[in-house]
Amino acid sequence: MTAAIPRAVDWAPSGDAVRILDQRRLPASAEWRDLRSVDEVYDAIRTLAVRGAPAIGVCAALGLAVAMRAHVDLPAARFATCLADAAARIRGARPTAVNLAWAVDRLLARAAAVTAAGMTPPAVAAALRAEADAVLEEDRRTCAAIGEHGAALLERLVARRADRDPGAPLVVHTHCNAGALATAGIGTALAPVYVLHARGRPVRVWADETRPLLQGSRITAWELARAGIPVTVIADGMAAALLQRGGVDVVCVGADRIAANGDVANKIGTYALALAARAHGVPFVVLAPTSTVDVACATGAAIPIEERDGDELRTALGHPLAAPGVAVWNPAFDVTPAALVSAIVTERGVREPPYAFAASP
Amino acid sequence: MTAAIPRAVDWAPSGDAVRILDQRRLPASAEWRDLRSVDEVYDAIRTLAVRGAPAIGVCAALGLAVAMRAHVDLPAARFATCLADAAARIRGARPTAVNLAWAVDRLLARAAAVTAAGMTPPAVAAALRAEADAVLEEDRRTCAAIGEHGAALLERLVARRADRDPGAPLVVHTHCNAGALATAGIGTALAPVYVLHARGRPVRVWADETRPLLQGSRITAWELARAGIPVTVIADGMAAALLQRGGVDVVCVGADRIAANGDVANKIGTYALALAARAHGVPFVVLAPTSTVDVACATGAAIPIEERDGDELRTALGHPLAAPGVAVWNPAFDVTPAALVSAIVTERGVREPPYAFAASP
Repeated sequence: MTAAIPRAVDWAPSGDAVRILDQRRLPASAEWRDLRSVDEVYDAIRTLAVRGAPAIGVCAALGLAVAMRAHVDLPAARFATCLADAAARIRGARPTAVNLAWAVDRLLARAAAVTAAGMTPPAVAAALRAEADAVLEEDRRTCAAIGEHGAALLERLVARRADRDPGAPLVVHTHCNAGALATAGIGTALAPVYVLHARGRPVRVWADETRPLLQGSRITAWELARAGIPVTVIADGMAAALLQRGGVDVVCVGADRIAANGDVANKIGTYALALAARAHGVPFVVLAPTSTVDVACATGAAIPIEERDGDELRTALGHPLAAPGVAVWNPAFDVTPAALVSAIVTERGVREPPYAFAASP
Repeated sequence: MTAAIPRAVDWAPSGDAVRILDQRRLPASAEWRDLRSVDEVYDAIRTLAVRGAPAIGVCAALGLAVAMRAHVDLPAARFATCLADAAARIRGARPTAVNLAWAVDRLLARAAAVTAAGMTPPAVAAALRAEADAVLEEDRRTCAAIGEHGAALLERLVARRADRDPGAPLVVHTHCNAGALATAGIGTALAPVYVLHARGRPVRVWADETRPLLQGSRITAWELARAGIPVTVIADGMAAALLQRGGVDVVCVGADRIAANGDVANKIGTYALALAARAHGVPFVVLAPTSTVDVACATGAAIPIEERDGDELRTALGHPLAAPGVAVWNPAFDVTPAALVSAIVTERGVREPPYAFAASP
């Protein structure tokens, strides 16, 4: 069934374009678009046709490599200038997206290395393509590893419960979208769901709709349904009542940033879900690549919380809901204290409390 | 400033109609409509132009009295038949609304009593009007009493906190709409807010938008702004992050039904808010008329929870948000355990735990 997991970003079959799923049109329609020029890549990232930090990084890497293929006949100096301009433009599409700058810089470093070694533009373009391919494959491997570690953890959590029918579907509750459509692979929070499903293990998912931008009802529900996994959407305020009712085995969420002490910044509404999970003894598991861990933040208090345009809250998909001038507060993220986090799963394995992340060796 | 509190339902100045605020059009426009016939009253209640259990009951009572004025020239037997038909039709507008049946039955009992005493149709119609007026005035007095008791409680709660600047605005967080627009008076959960504001005490309100039907962003925000009280709307999933941030003095909510042990059924999302309030030591206060207490329910487990049409969750104000066929769960209410309820305020005063409601003497 893995084949039915939609791909957010990939090479087009011809190899001369980046193929993305245009997430702006979900769930009304699923349209894949091929990006060939720097402008097309820039627009796709800027307008959120591609979203999710890993997917944005991969799109930028593939896009830069594809766009430079058109310029291999330039003299070396002009090719280098053209590459620098293209990189700067793509990097500027979403200035605060860490993965975007990281992916672009990685390709620039590779180009600089092969240029310094005397390579000509066609060879530099080939090196860019190889590096982009590495970025893509690493993201896929990271997702797959999170999925494997996460699946094993979920099975262990369920096995611990003496009252549970081992043949019953494993029931996962998630928030926002940390699925395939946020990455180039099988996602992070949803990676174990896809792994278990591929093994024939019955899995069911509850998805918070995730106001204001509705990533749950629009994106998570769509990608799971497309992969053949049963999913039910609830309003964010229903999560506590659902956990009170029973039947949820585990809450799985992604992360935007993880502090050294295990405090987790994630999409607004995550903290409320963690409180409800704790109140009902449901394990609360965070799944994210190690690149999400920011050891420079000792605790969640050091993580800056972006506040976004209030019109996101005054509307839903552009439709006005509240009086135009009504005052709103629209934080994009919240911080869940480490004390509420049962486990943190990365591509390297599972951490359990107490958390003490240190800089990578 | 009390004059600026909008009225959901009242007599029209002419006295020959029920004047309602058409809440279907909020917040886009505020239109008052005059209802004169049984059909107009039926439609207003059925289509949610009037909502909130107390407001529905008052609208039904006033509407029945107004409609019967047109029939006072009928012979007594035909007047009685006409009254029975009108009552049955209005009562059927929302079959599950307890206050609706209660108000209609109260007018019928009064009519039966005066008819039995030999009164003619004009005198019966006058008695219906007097009874409707009593229903209206009782609802207003109940709201006012809840407001007085609630205001005193809120001031006591704030005074207990040694760290608090007594001159700072009192900050209330609420969910859904248990305000003036749910009653004929100044509301229930918001009644203390109006009382304090009328006394010149600075008050600020945080309002959850309350998915799926958005009573918070549409109705609570509108009525408070109209009354000149600062209000800020958040998504339901932001409430825990707001309480974590600090600055909220008290959470005030209404109730749809209260069990004998103090468990509270209220609009879905209330329980999540109660959990977050407890996690951050913020008092969680329920304000409702004693008619909301159902001593036949020993605990919240005995309260039936209505599940509503899933399309409410697949849309917002009729605009599609999720894929048309996506599975949803849409409970209209949840149950907050009494252990999370700091106080229950009725028109009779303030109850604090442990709760043990008994049938009224």
